[in-house]
Amino acid sequence: MKTQLNFGIIGSGYMGKAYAVALKALPAVFPLSAEPVCDMLATSDAQGAAQSARALGFRRSTGDWRELVTDPAIDVVGICSPTYLHKEMALAAIAAGKHVICEKPLSLSASDAQEMADAATQAGVCTLVGFNYMKNPATALAKQLIESGEIGDIIHFRGTHNEDFLMDPTLPMSWRLKREFASSAGALGDIASHIINMAHYLCGPVAEVVGDSQIIHPKRPNANGELEAVENDDQTSFLLTFASGVQGSIEASRVAAGRKMGLTYEIIGTQGSLYFDQERLAELQYFSARDPAHLQGFRTILIGPEHPDYRHFCIGTGHGFGFNDMIMVEMRDLIEGIGGTRTLWPSFTDAVHSAQVVEAVMRSQQDRTWVAVSPAAPAP
Amino acid sequence: MKTQLNFGIIGSGYMGKAYAVALKALPAVFPLSAEPVCDMLATSDAQGAAQSARALGFRRSTGDWRELVTDPAIDVVGICSPTYLHKEMALAAIAAGKHVICEKPLSLSASDAQEMADAATQAGVCTLVGFNYMKNPATALAKQLIESGEIGDIIHFRGTHNEDFLMDPTLPMSWRLKREFASSAGALGDIASHIINMAHYLCGPVAEVVGDSQIIHPKRPNANGELEAVENDDQTSFLLTFASGVQGSIEASRVAAGRKMGLTYEIIGTQGSLYFDQERLAELQYFSARDPAHLQGFRTILIGPEHPDYRHFCIGTGHGFGFNDMIMVEMRDLIEGIGGTRTLWPSFTDAVHSAQVVEAVMRSQQDRTWVAVSPAAPAP
Amino acid sequence: MKTQLNFGIIGSGYMGKAYAVALKALPAVFPLSAEPVCDMLATSDAQGAAQSARALGFRRSTGDWRELVTDPAIDVVGICSPTYLHKEMALAAIAAGKHVICEKPLSLSASDAQEMADAATQAGVCTLVGFNYMKNPATALAKQLIESGEIGDIIHFRGTHNEDFLMDPTLPMSWRLKREFASSAGALGDIASHIINMAHYLCGPVAEVVGDSQIIHPKRPNANGELEAVENDDQTSFLLTFASGVQGSIEASRVAAGRKMGLTYEIIGTQGSLYFDQERLAELQYFSARDPAHLQGFRTILIGPEHPDYRHFCIGTGHGFGFNDMIMVEMRDLIEGIGGTRTLWPSFTDAVHSAQVVEAVMRSQQDRTWVAVSPAAPAP
Amino acid sequence: MKTQLNFGIIGSGYMGKAYAVALKALPAVFPLSAEPVCDMLATSDAQGAAQSARALGFRRSTGDWRELVTDPAIDVVGICSPTYLHKEMALAAIAAGKHVICEKPLSLSASDAQEMADAATQAGVCTLVGFNYMKNPATALAKQLIESGEIGDIIHFRGTHNEDFLMDPTLPMSWRLKREFASSAGALGDIASHIINMAHYLCGPVAEVVGDSQIIHPKRPNANGELEAVENDDQTSFLLTFASGVQGSIEASRVAAGRKMGLTYEIIGTQGSLYFDQERLAELQYFSARDPAHLQGFRTILIGPEHPDYRHFCIGTGHGFGFNDMIMVEMRDLIEGIGGTRTLWPSFTDAVHSAQVVEAVMRSQQDRTWVAVSPAAPAP
Ligand SMILES: NC(=O)C1=CN([C@@H]2O[C@H](COP(=O)(O)OP(=O)(O)OC[C@H]3O[C@@H](n4cnc5c(N)ncnc54)[C@H](O)[C@@H]3O)[C@@H](O)[C@H]2O)C=CC1
Ligand SMILES: NC(=O)C1=CN([C@@H]2O[C@H](COP(=O)(O)OP(=O)(O)OC[C@H]3O[C@@H](n4cnc5c(N)ncnc54)[C@H](O)[C@@H]3O)[C@@H](O)[C@H]2O)C=CC1
Ligand SMILES: NC(=O)C1=CN([C@@H]2O[C@H](COP(=O)(O)OP(=O)(O)OC[C@H]3O[C@@H](n4cnc5c(N)ncnc54)[C@H](O)[C@@H]3O)[C@@H](O)[C@H]2O)C=CC1
Ligand SMILES: NC(=O)C1=CN([C@@H]2O[C@H](COP(=O)(O)OP(=O)(O)OC[C@H]3O[C@@H](n4cnc5c(N)ncnc54)[C@H](O)[C@@H]3O)[C@@H](O)[C@H]2O)C=CC1
Repeated sequence: MKTQLNFGIIGSGYMGKAYAVALKALPAVFPLSAEPVCDMLATSDAQGAAQSARALGFRRSTGDWRELVTDPAIDVVGICSPTYLHKEMALAAIAAGKHVICEKPLSLSASDAQEMADAATQAGVCTLVGFNYMKNPATALAKQLIESGEIGDIIHFRGTHNEDFLMDPTLPMSWRLKREFASSAGALGDIASHIINMAHYLCGPVAEVVGDSQIIHPKRPNANGELEAVENDDQTSFLLTFASGVQGSIEASRVAAGRKMGLTYEIIGTQGSLYFDQERLAELQYFSARDPAHLQGFRTILIGPEHPDYRHFCIGTGHGFGFNDMIMVEMRDLIEGIGGTRTLWPSFTDAVHSAQVVEAVMRSQQDRTWVAVSPAAPAP
Repeated sequence: MKTQLNFGIIGSGYMGKAYAVALKALPAVFPLSAEPVCDMLATSDAQGAAQSARALGFRRSTGDWRELVTDPAIDVVGICSPTYLHKEMALAAIAAGKHVICEKPLSLSASDAQEMADAATQAGVCTLVGFNYMKNPATALAKQLIESGEIGDIIHFRGTHNEDFLMDPTLPMSWRLKREFASSAGALGDIASHIINMAHYLCGPVAEVVGDSQIIHPKRPNANGELEAVENDDQTSFLLTFASGVQGSIEASRVAAGRKMGLTYEIIGTQGSLYFDQERLAELQYFSARDPAHLQGFRTILIGPEHPDYRHFCIGTGHGFGFNDMIMVEMRDLIEGIGGTRTLWPSFTDAVHSAQVVEAVMRSQQDRTWVAVSPAAPAP
Repeated sequence: MKTQLNFGIIGSGYMGKAYAVALKALPAVFPLSAEPVCDMLATSDAQGAAQSARALGFRRSTGDWRELVTDPAIDVVGICSPTYLHKEMALAAIAAGKHVICEKPLSLSASDAQEMADAATQAGVCTLVGFNYMKNPATALAKQLIESGEIGDIIHFRGTHNEDFLMDPTLPMSWRLKREFASSAGALGDIASHIINMAHYLCGPVAEVVGDSQIIHPKRPNANGELEAVENDDQTSFLLTFASGVQGSIEASRVAAGRKMGLTYEIIGTQGSLYFDQERLAELQYFSARDPAHLQGFRTILIGPEHPDYRHFCIGTGHGFGFNDMIMVEMRDLIEGIGGTRTLWPSFTDAVHSAQVVEAVMRSQQDRTWVAVSPAAPAP
Repeated sequence: MKTQLNFGIIGSGYMGKAYAVALKALPAVFPLSAEPVCDMLATSDAQGAAQSARALGFRRSTGDWRELVTDPAIDVVGICSPTYLHKEMALAAIAAGKHVICEKPLSLSASDAQEMADAATQAGVCTLVGFNYMKNPATALAKQLIESGEIGDIIHFRGTHNEDFLMDPTLPMSWRLKREFASSAGALGDIASHIINMAHYLCGPVAEVVGDSQIIHPKRPNANGELEAVENDDQTSFLLTFASGVQGSIEASRVAAGRKMGLTYEIIGTQGSLYFDQERLAELQYFSARDPAHLQGFRTILIGPEHPDYRHFCIGTGHGFGFNDMIMVEMRDLIEGIGGTRTLWPSFTDAVHSAQVVEAVMRSQQDRTWVAVSPAAPAP
């Protein structure tokens, strides 16, 4: 087996940097079956790429991502470019036989996602989609508690993912707000996709939805100061029925004043409940109806070495958990998935489902009615 | 003007007792235009009524509520009986020219509610519906902040009212679970009505809804230990569009493990947000986008003498607020509404709206589509 | 046995009103062995007393408290006057054979407290000191959990009582800040006494202390706008060793920005811990080391009908608890203590201990060393 | 100027690993004046060292730390060995002209700390002591707010550092519990030193203390299962007066059930307050008395790119912060301190003060009185 895996990363912005930080620290954090190497970085121009490569510790760089995805030395391609570029890049990387980790949302449409998934399956390469928030030990604990029956049968799911980074209407136009570059699913595609994927992970696939999304600030200034139309939603709300029959709701926003990283879920079972808030990401709230009546209450479990993965970061309970720490868990999953000792989730195939849910919500808004979603497999 | 108001209360259970406690303490708490007197109590049997009257401090009692509502000495009738009795009792009281406070939900159907409202209007009597949770100083503060523009324009409302008093499937059958006595709106009618009314109060009337409700525990043992069918929902979720165009969501449950009094609302505006949780009823969370960027955050405002009504209970900020304290504010509103110095809200007429929303949610579930709600007036 | 108890209350300010509210509501809240009657009110002038008596619902009033304490119809005297008057009033009431509830702190000195306690003992009357915060169901639950061994052996106590009502240095001089009227124990005597009494209640008597108190705002304007010297401390900190050998600390303040009712305690045991904060008075935080390791965490227990006294106020868990509700529990204790079915705690005799602790802290500051406190009995 | 700095780390346990993780990720996180290289690792045996070096990504390893500290290629020595070894190792490293970062507590005694500080000063090398918790953006923000006068003049400091990792009395004896290896300051030296240093950082040096520490579990089983005496305290409490005259208190424990990383501070000023809890390390609570009265409350500031250092880890506010992230800030400080663009704090010289405070607390316990601490400089 290979003991090194050469990574080629496309994009050195928010997520490109996070990948680099994670890959650098990873071998010191986790025992690994193969050592990741930050081999090549691609961005949109050669000079910028060279500079970023130096800053982030890549050996090589390029202004042409096609060079990267076809480079024979590269084992794994990481796609951290704006969403509209994911498909072309992923297909090229897959065609070149590379394993691919691609940022969320996987693509501009569910059919594109399906095409990418099919290509990967046919090529037999490993894939992973960057739904990093599920890589938190607190959520891994939630998954354990659900599976071990600690909260009984699930009867309700309530999810949110609220942020406010676009609440100021004077903030400028960007690719995220344009149909062409980010689809007509705005908060729905960019943000809600995280909590949809989380719902899929924890409660299984979604069968039906009905929803409504809104643009709150319909125009924003472009680079020339002219007002341009925002082309996708600022906030969204929908009801969902899981394939299991369980009912739930999801809301997401990029204009929710005061919420910075408000990915929350409340999962109600017949014997207990779980509550999680990503703003306090190192805690899981757990209620057990099996406690004596006078001692019942939600308890705040601080993640620690008793919980999945945490002990590799620190052996003291409650010592904190950072954004890049989740990316490290994600990269560990990827490497061990490639190594064959872990199931990769969500692969491109798995992530088609969240894209389909997003589109079903949009259709339900047009038709003012519930819309069915194609069947999908539960998370392992 | 009369300086005493004789109250006749029907029912001495959960709410009947609360009314008595509130009326007894009220004159010492608030300056009042008229002193309430606990004059007569009616329950379903004369002997029990007499005993309860002694315990709760009523002068007189009866096992026949008709006697109470027609007694010439009675000025105000309080209806704290099971919901299916409200209509008959209220109509009789109105016919006798009494002012009426009636527990929520007002009736088994919106048309009954309308009939009751019409009767009251025609008779020219004052009415109030027992949506006590809105009588909290924290919510009065929320209302103030909304009206003064502190959070800008409202763009989203998220409400819940989750409790778990029926989460145990072995708990016995009761009138609350039967169509005949409590309508086919279970958690939707009994519990969600509080948060629907709150939404109406804070954000105005609702124009359209789509929702889904479920029975989680379909059978429960009756007095003979036989399993009987539960006839109304244990939990409900729906989306709503306010007449203002603002979008929102509401969820309610009587089986939500761990939530005891989970009436919460989050109101997002273009300049700030509010969050309230009835389990910490003496706090309002407020986020202002006008704070300097590095100092922004939700602040926990503890209610105190600077806020509406609180100083009458205690002059120290943050010294707590109890269930019966809200009933006292409600009774103060009623007395001063009768006295003509306060607007009574929600009157029977105002409360028709929440009944209509409940029915629209049920219709939307049958039709699997959005359903319009008749126009209603905003809260004053 | 008497079925009515005539109360004579001295003072109609903050606490005088609270007593009236509580006594009015009490018979409807609790089953009682005797019904309290608001018979007579005394304040410093006859006219004001008459007006307050009308507002608060007393039958009679007087501008001369001596008239009240000697009135043959009065069974119980409630002393809600400024602290420097407590002793004279209490001794007179005791001399007249009345039961007495007196606000905290009991007196200006421990020796005065002892004198009052001795008089009461000799006269055989019942007494209670107004340490109302311990009358909360959450604290009653804490006491239960300690006694049942739920948290093992206590190894540490940390208490605070922080408020900020005097943080603004331009607030005027008042009797509370003068040695003559409130002793030279400011925050220490007025505020810390609550948490000292709580420590006594939950962990037993204190054996030794060392502390330091400070005046933060040394001068304040009097009625004429002239600056006058503040004569007692604004904040205090001390360490304490309980008679049991357990170590702890207490801090109190009237100038602690942001703390409104910051009476908190953390009690650490060998098997678990308790944490309470009066600003969220309807909750007790409980940690149990007996929970499985991966499920350990502080749980938030909302008080409800499973806990002491709560069900008399409301049968729904987590529905809130108010300042006056604690006074009601206190008055119930008093009435049933007089009736002989409850132990009254803290009686005047019991409360001597907190006064002695206060004085020991002051002595320890002068001597810069630990100071022993006279032995006292634990709470029952 | 050198563009690489070769690090030699002694110890590969809890902190040795953390150093390695931080150094690996650092160049991708921060722009740096020199790139750190994980050059050599020393542990107590050659074979283990070689294995750890492979796991943690060091080029070279040794079983003899003297080899490391005298190796000419090494620029910076990191000391992550048990405390009793710090002095010998640091003096040797300093003698060899190396810069040194040493874990806390610096040494077994204040006089040892002074000797180490003097040696470093004379040698002109840079030093830093591993008080990593102060390297959190939330605390950097607290420092800013204090300095900018946002909370007025400080009037009180309350600090705790409570953990429970030794609450179970059956846990085995270890070097931490022995006078010879960890001094007779147990929780006081090992844990309280963090919060003492934090107090020094935020409020300046300490002038006087009085305290008391206790051993809760006096015996623990050794490797042979025999009970051996624990030789230093499990918990400690002390009062302190800062050189500024401000009064405060500190408590620390290693047996405080339920507290996992309970480093907290509350800093009260004349215009506002700050509260921090390391268990929610990505938040600072801030109260401002300048807010309008009806809108005052503690606000929860989630750290984000507006606050010191955070943006290098993630550009989204409230996205979490981990234990190793603090070590990265610490290592950045070290590198830039060596580079001359940052003031290193606390250097060995600065850290003498916390050692002196620890010893003064122990002396105060013996003498049962307040004990003065030698003057020290405030943090820059
Ligand atoms: N998982 C998560 O938490 C997050 C995921 N994302 C996702 O990551 C992706 C990237 O977003 P950000 O990092 O925020 O974007 P960004 O704007 O910070 O960075 C985009 C990068 O892509 C590069 N790029 C653009 N066009 C290119 C081209 N033609 N060839 C090569 N490189 C090109 C740019 O040079 C830049 O380095 C998006 O799909 C986004 O949805 C973004 C933020 C958080
Ligand atoms: N606002 C709030 O927070 C709450 C409102 N409620 C509402 O209050 C109403 C009563 O509920 P609870 O107090 O919980 O019921 P409960 O079962 O505790 O008490 C019902 C009372 O009605 C009396 N009653 C029944 N039939 C009667 C008759 N034919 N004539 C005279 N009296 C009769 C019973 O004797 C009993 O005293 C319901 O409409 C319920 O929805 C209930 C609980 C909380
Ligand atoms: N347990 C608690 O939570 C609290 C206890 N207290 C205690 O209650 C006592 C009273 O404090 P507040 O109610 O805040 O005072 P206040 O200033 O609000 O009221 C004092 C009352 O005493 C009356 N009074 C004064 N001199 C009198 C005289 N010579 N004869 C008859 N009446 C006289 C005044 O007319 C006034 O009605 C104090 O000992 C205080 O420490 C105060 C507040 C809270
Ligand atoms: N800043 C913080 O948050 C923390 C600081 N510490 C401090 O870090 C220091 C180390 O503690 P831990 O990492 O918990 O210890 P540990 O027991 O996990 O690791 C100690 C390391 O020192 C090595 N070592 C022991 N004797 C040696 C020798 N003679 N030569 C070379 N290496 C030797 C061991 O091989 C081991 O790798 C202590 O001073 C402790 O107080 C510990 C934990 C947290």
